[in-house]
Amino acid sequence: MSDRYSEFRRLAASLSVDAVALVPGPNFVRLFNQSFSTSERPLVVLIPQEGAPAALVPNLELGSFALMNFEGEVFDWRDQDGYMHAFDALARHFPLKSLAVEGQVMRVFVHHALAGANAGLRIVDAEREISGLRLRKTASEIAAIEKAIAISENALASILPEIRIGMTEKRIESMLIQAMFSEGTEGLSFTPIVAAGDNSALPHASAREHYAVQDGDALLFDFGARADGFIADITRTVFVGHADDEARQVYETVLKANAVGREITRPGITAHDVDDAVTSVLEASPFADRIRTKTGHGMGREVHEAPYIMRGNRQILEAGMVFTDEPGLYEIGRFGVRIEDDILVTEDGCRSLTSFDRELRVIAG
Amino acid sequence: MSDRYSEFRRLAASLSVDAVALVPGPNFVRLFNQSFSTSERPLVVLIPQEGAPAALVPNLELGSFALMNFEGEVFDWRDQDGYMHAFDALARHFPLKSLAVEGQVMRVFVHHALAGANAGLRIVDAEREISGLRLRKTASEIAAIEKAIAISENALASILPEIRIGMTEKRIESMLIQAMFSEGTEGLSFTPIVAAGDNSALPHASAREHYAVQDGDALLFDFGARADGFIADITRTVFVGHADDEARQVYETVLKANAVGREITRPGITAHDVDDAVTSVLEASPFADRIRTKTGHGMGREVHEAPYIMRGNRQILEAGMVFTDEPGLYEIGRFGVRIEDDILVTEDGCRSLTSFDRELRVIAG
Repeated sequence: MSDRYSEFRRLAASLSVDAVALVPGPNFVRLFNQSFSTSERPLVVLIPQEGAPAALVPNLELGSFALMNFEGEVFDWRDQDGYMHAFDALARHFPLKSLAVEGQVMRVFVHHALAGANAGLRIVDAEREISGLRLRKTASEIAAIEKAIAISENALASILPEIRIGMTEKRIESMLIQAMFSEGTEGLSFTPIVAAGDNSALPHASAREHYAVQDGDALLFDFGARADGFIADITRTVFVGHADDEARQVYETVLKANAVGREITRPGITAHDVDDAVTSVLEASPFADRIRTKTGHGMGREVHEAPYIMRGNRQILEAGMVFTDEPGLYEIGRFGVRIEDDILVTEDGCRSLTSFDRELRVIAG
Repeated sequence: MSDRYSEFRRLAASLSVDAVALVPGPNFVRLFNQSFSTSERPLVVLIPQEGAPAALVPNLELGSFALMNFEGEVFDWRDQDGYMHAFDALARHFPLKSLAVEGQVMRVFVHHALAGANAGLRIVDAEREISGLRLRKTASEIAAIEKAIAISENALASILPEIRIGMTEKRIESMLIQAMFSEGTEGLSFTPIVAAGDNSALPHASAREHYAVQDGDALLFDFGARADGFIADITRTVFVGHADDEARQVYETVLKANAVGREITRPGITAHDVDDAVTSVLEASPFADRIRTKTGHGMGREVHEAPYIMRGNRQILEAGMVFTDEPGLYEIGRFGVRIEDDILVTEDGCRSLTSFDRELRVIAG
């Protein structure tokens, strides 16, 4: 049976489960081109090894669900009645003994409802296998990522000349967000990280309401726009007013590590190989004790997806994969530097989709 | 033992479980005033009935985690090593036989890891009880919601005069988003719904790239800003160019139902009572077959939380609760109207925190 479910049917067969369950999220959107904000309302699609799929859908989403031209039986439920009767009806229609689910997307209440309706159900976390279907990006998916990157880079370029000593991190964050929307983003990949001084040493910092950037601060931007359902994820670190010798040395070390990632990536090497080569540059520097992260992560519909670029991950890189190359050095309480590019593995090497200038830059000088 | 965990300790006792588990999300932020975007990385805090809490934290989040002044043992793990050894170490330190979790926040992979490290673990979905601790908003929480509402209402007021026939839904959505950031929002409550014509009949529509608004269209805005971690959620439906008789009749019916919600709400009545009174207005109209949703939902840190305003929900309203009053009428394929206010239950009645004009409005006329 060849239909839009073929790769999921094969996956169910290879995992020896009755069906694959999809819930709203990146895999769901890729298959159906329709997104739902389900919050407290379960919505599940079951794709069996053979035969028609089936779905459980909140009644008030039936209109949006109809846009998917779904081929199978639909069991809907109304808020007033709760959802368990629909899970029971689904289980009578389509009894399950084993089910593969997206462990990083499905929440516990849906897991409990499925288990409650299907006695003895074996639920397998197949996040890796299901999301693995998104590993190699198509030409149109790469074009969407490039569009998101162009918006992001234009936004950063437009605000850097406007930043002044004394502005708060929060104000600069707001400038960056507005610039992305002016440039046409669909939304934010994630809440941008705009972190100065000691805050730049936290890999996942939040912009502070009251911290005003000072002369000599590192100022780190980690952010991204969205276009056609795909994200950008870029980091640049600049210095405010001036950069002292240590800051310059740290910056050049990180840049050298980042460059190694952009140089050695090619099909056939592993995610381990890339992290090992990049991290080795940091380890050989006087700042080895400031290493706090692996080199990067895959990206596409989600900000974090496979392949994870870390030592020990023997996943072989293939043309079409896209991942971040984002070495950093972080001294808690003082400052951090990170330089992050988005790398596409090509047939014979790689190409950085991000091109924003990487040379050390002093702003508001 | 009286500490910041008291209400969770009492909850663990009343549920007869060894501990309550919190993962990053609204309950976590309320307790620790710190947020994490954990995606593929588990982070869990365990709060027992008595004694010190314990946590499992990704190594690269230790810096941000330290800002919480956490009192208990912390088990960290690095991407390179995976997280199972940390779950095992946590289980040796703090063996669990039963655990209450947030079923709508915790994802299956964390559930599996906890179950894998604690043989025979009974996992109880205590979403209702845990999130129930956020039901009655404090004065500062209400102030934050009012701030988010002011930003939202100012944004809508600023763009309505700028809308012209022929603009696309997507363009109008972008105008609305930019206006919210200009007004100082921290982020978006959710991707705004900007839906014209037949799209307004889908309760959870998305703005379309290529649909240009036409003379006679209903144009529905459902959106909200964020301030200090709290959200606004407001809907207004206007008409483009002109509103025909049917449109006016539908609008007045929905407005009458919405007004009933704002009139009858007071402490001591139930969520059922409010939905029943509001929906009865719609049912008594010639448009009863266009009812597709319940009256509303609680809101605060999240867009959807308790109390859910629906028939059958016998939850008693108490002062400090905040919920939406958002009756609507939707004719699939033609148009929909929804009017949504955010209602605070007060000691002796209620107050609508939203105040944007509710009279039928024709724009671009």
